[in-house]
Amino acid sequence: MTSLPSFSTCTLHGAMSAPTAMQCYKDCIFNYSSLFKQSLHSKLISVSSSPTQSKVLSTLKPVNWEQSGMNRVQCQAQDVENKTFLVGNKFQLDDVVEAQQFDRNILSAIFEVAREMEKIEKNSPGSQILKGFLMATLFYEPSTRTRLSFESAMKRLGGEVLTTENAREFSSAAKGETLEDTIRTVEGYSDIIVMRHFESGAARRAAVTASIPVINAGDGPGQHPTQALLDVYTIEREIGKLDGIKVGLVGDLANGRTVRSLAYLLSKYQDVKIYFVAPEVVKMKDDIKDYLTSKGLDWEESDDLMEVASKCDVVYQTRIQRERFGERIDLYQEAQGKYIVDRAVLHAMQEHAVIMHPLPRLDEITVDVDVDKRAAYFRQAKNGLYIRMALLKLLLVGW
Amino acid sequence: MTSLPSFSTCTLHGAMSAPTAMQCYKDCIFNYSSLFKQSLHSKLISVSSSPTQSKVLSTLKPVNWEQSGMNRVQCQAQDVENKTFLVGNKFQLDDVVEAQQFDRNILSAIFEVAREMEKIEKNSPGSQILKGFLMATLFYEPSTRTRLSFESAMKRLGGEVLTTENAREFSSAAKGETLEDTIRTVEGYSDIIVMRHFESGAARRAAVTASIPVINAGDGPGQHPTQALLDVYTIEREIGKLDGIKVGLVGDLANGRTVRSLAYLLSKYQDVKIYFVAPEVVKMKDDIKDYLTSKGLDWEESDDLMEVASKCDVVYQTRIQRERFGERIDLYQEAQGKYIVDRAVLHAMQEHAVIMHPLPRLDEITVDVDVDKRAAYFRQAKNGLYIRMALLKLLLVGW
Amino acid sequence: MTSLPSFSTCTLHGAMSAPTAMQCYKDCIFNYSSLFKQSLHSKLISVSSSPTQSKVLSTLKPVNWEQSGMNRVQCQAQDVENKTFLVGNKFQLDDVVEAQQFDRNILSAIFEVAREMEKIEKNSPGSQILKGFLMATLFYEPSTRTRLSFESAMKRLGGEVLTTENAREFSSAAKGETLEDTIRTVEGYSDIIVMRHFESGAARRAAVTASIPVINAGDGPGQHPTQALLDVYTIEREIGKLDGIKVGLVGDLANGRTVRSLAYLLSKYQDVKIYFVAPEVVKMKDDIKDYLTSKGLDWEESDDLMEVASKCDVVYQTRIQRERFGERIDLYQEAQGKYIVDRAVLHAMQEHAVIMHPLPRLDEITVDVDVDKRAAYFRQAKNGLYIRMALLKLLLVGW
Repeated sequence: MTSLPSFSTCTLHGAMSAPTAMQCYKDCIFNYSSLFKQSLHSKLISVSSSPTQSKVLSTLKPVNWEQSGMNRVQCQAQDVENKTFLVGNKFQLDDVVEAQQFDRNILSAIFEVAREMEKIEKNSPGSQILKGFLMATLFYEPSTRTRLSFESAMKRLGGEVLTTENAREFSSAAKGETLEDTIRTVEGYSDIIVMRHFESGAARRAAVTASIPVINAGDGPGQHPTQALLDVYTIEREIGKLDGIKVGLVGDLANGRTVRSLAYLLSKYQDVKIYFVAPEVVKMKDDIKDYLTSKGLDWEESDDLMEVASKCDVVYQTRIQRERFGERIDLYQEAQGKYIVDRAVLHAMQEHAVIMHPLPRLDEITVDVDVDKRAAYFRQAKNGLYIRMALLKLLLVGW
Repeated sequence: MTSLPSFSTCTLHGAMSAPTAMQCYKDCIFNYSSLFKQSLHSKLISVSSSPTQSKVLSTLKPVNWEQSGMNRVQCQAQDVENKTFLVGNKFQLDDVVEAQQFDRNILSAIFEVAREMEKIEKNSPGSQILKGFLMATLFYEPSTRTRLSFESAMKRLGGEVLTTENAREFSSAAKGETLEDTIRTVEGYSDIIVMRHFESGAARRAAVTASIPVINAGDGPGQHPTQALLDVYTIEREIGKLDGIKVGLVGDLANGRTVRSLAYLLSKYQDVKIYFVAPEVVKMKDDIKDYLTSKGLDWEESDDLMEVASKCDVVYQTRIQRERFGERIDLYQEAQGKYIVDRAVLHAMQEHAVIMHPLPRLDEITVDVDVDKRAAYFRQAKNGLYIRMALLKLLLVGW
Repeated sequence: MTSLPSFSTCTLHGAMSAPTAMQCYKDCIFNYSSLFKQSLHSKLISVSSSPTQSKVLSTLKPVNWEQSGMNRVQCQAQDVENKTFLVGNKFQLDDVVEAQQFDRNILSAIFEVAREMEKIEKNSPGSQILKGFLMATLFYEPSTRTRLSFESAMKRLGGEVLTTENAREFSSAAKGETLEDTIRTVEGYSDIIVMRHFESGAARRAAVTASIPVINAGDGPGQHPTQALLDVYTIEREIGKLDGIKVGLVGDLANGRTVRSLAYLLSKYQDVKIYFVAPEVVKMKDDIKDYLTSKGLDWEESDDLMEVASKCDVVYQTRIQRERFGERIDLYQEAQGKYIVDRAVLHAMQEHAVIMHPLPRLDEITVDVDVDKRAAYFRQAKNGLYIRMALLKLLLVGW
């Protein structure tokens, strides 16, 4: 087996060797990490001071390159925006924990792989790229949509899956076992862990513990990075570009981790304009607004959905989550009915524009909108499959 | 590879192209559909007026014929009973939603495939007929037996499975998502959907929505067509014929969708005689009796299980379902103990006759009957595997 | 396909033909079976008097030897400790139901296969040894750790899995179906059944019923034989021997089936010394103590964990199970805090010694112990994978 000598001969932004990557990573999230409440500090400290095996210094499980159709080490450097970044064989990331891990270069490279995955899914039903690899889906909180999407991604590439649909109730967690102990056991049975958890920060704890890759499939009010990636990927696929676009974020902007992550990722592109359209009680919070301002991104608040719709390339609608309102059903009902995307909104929109939604939707988009080609939300859900195929491929067998 | 030349050369009844099939289908169920309470009208209307993609006019997902061992398109027809029916490469049905979709010609052809499946299951543990295909089992109501049967069928043919054991509680349905939205998402992750639902008519709604095949694995008090098919298949396998047989339907004939569907399918054969043996409170309803009469099928009611057993080729016992009796435990207990198949009944039966039961059984068949070779109910359960293998194969790769 | 003629030409202890094996098995457990409360008598009676197909006399499902890489029948006799035992192609056991089925010869042979499995897991991610075989995991009681371990084992060898995560609630059992009926159905859909049940003795009932192999993955307070095997395997792997070792069993010795089974298996080795270190209310019961004495094994009770730790090769810690104490929270808390394995205990231990634990652990081993190389419990969990791979391979395709 050839190891990864090429990593030492390129200059790059994304990652050179893991410790360098970690430094870059630390730098690039320095100003932002507080926005997502959990500091990365703990992870970096844990990793570097870990008295056991160092995750960062360890390599991935040895890869059978023949099996994955790659029989020589490839290493190329690309110069993008005065940065050089590696397209060699090892993926820059050991885990996918939060949106902050991704900059526009790595996003662009992942999207290229996602487009390849789209071809594989359509034309090569028997792909064997991940044959012999085993993914454990450890779901402490049920989420059929996300779980099936990951499991489909793994199986479309020839990989296998171990499933726990409801780990919180069914597993040792119910007996008081720590997440760390569970991870140490499950990593012995699988090659990659996809975890959904009810606690913010759980994904990072799992990633620090595991010696195999961990993908965060949502950790409570924390992060859901693959959703953020598929949203950006969908915009690029539908609109054809990310620089210079106008995006209207509509609905529950206070609680939705989806729109918060999306706003963050959009700040990495040039000349993006964001409109916030939210009922009074669930307005976008100041932390994101301040962050966008600090990045020079143009944003404004509006209560005129019709006008925003007429200007935007993307109308991103979200569900008002009833559970956030507790006893105040009156407030919920007021918020919930305020901004509905219906055929009138559609009529106001430009021909090339699209409507997106992270799903599930209730009635914040009326069903008669579905038949319009600008209704992109089911294509968006499908793009989740390609993004997840790409990430699984990258984490398990590299570029 | 040689395929089924006998099917060749004609113009037909069942289906030639999908729209023709739909017309035939509409014709042939015209007189019957009201018996099952949900008119097919809504489906046909939905389909033809659908502003989006027409399911009926669309073809199945492009099939990799090399993979399935068929390397050219075959289209042949057979003349049976003054009807002509197509057995080319595409299966006549896009979905399996209800028993009314099947006439004796298509049943006969499916049974031939089921017998091939029996050979494959016994002799070719590594069959790859469905390699690369992904089935989603979307169970809104748990049913381990049915689910495992479908999943085994898929895996015995080399296919893969995405599972939801309890979609009602665990999925977006809990957040208020419509079935249609769930289907639109799941169809992006799989090649075929097997759905169990608690609402009558749900399967048809799913089939109309999906652009991939849907199999109804039971929708509440509605239909459970694969059970009906495996029952008829079992009779043919055990008795050697379907024309001219005598069948005793015993137990809960009022509520059991199984016996209602079976009675309906048996009306498609010649000279069949049906005996209804049911406690007073759960007698067979008039709709089915009238239908059988209109088809010229001979039936009678009896309260003498012993005598019926001595005359029949098939004694089809069913479970009295306690949940149907509400507070009236006394009525349940009376009904439940009234007609028990025990060794005395066995003794009265002819040597070639068989006992069937859709399972699970409680004590309506005593355990000491199990050892008799005429106890066919576990073979019947196994036949469910072959029928489901056949349907998966037909829907995914055609004849 | 070659059948198994060689079985008739060897003299042996372990098994010759199934009936002989059954006799040997009966002999060797004669003195012990009462310790585990359920007499084996019922099984043997059931088997020999079964009016249907005899499980013992039947052979396994015909095996495709080409597929498993064995292209000729091998049959050798080994003389070990004045006993002769078969290492031919068929495994001596039809099912894995309880620890009493294993003597040191068969343990030794299984461990050799487990070591091969370790190599396969590390170096041959795409092993196809069990390709085409289907395992049903029938879990009437959730146990994610054990289930994932078995499913990983099956998939690491190229086999496929049908899963029921919570059969008690979701299956026909909820409608009153007997375990026997469920088994008769599921055996039609799979090649091997791995069952977890809440009732002691359920595994034996399943094994007697099924015509395919059954593995007991824990039946209530009864047995959990694969845990017992992986414990002994771990001691051999960590210490390098089993004869002459000193083992401290710590914690809940009254209720833990794990330590009871381990004590029983250790009695098969020479010059083993066992120390029992347990809070007063959960002391090791007399049945096991008497049994060890009758086998000439040296044991003593102690309340000085530090001293025991300094002498032992293995400190086997267990969890005090709160549910055993009912209302007496005070007794639980007293017992629970009494014997903690922490860095002080570690300091007292010898360099070559190890700490084991069946997991999950709460705080009976402090987290700071984890980083010491003598903390063997996660390696122990991993060994469960190899033992289960070995058993699946042996039951499905033989030696």
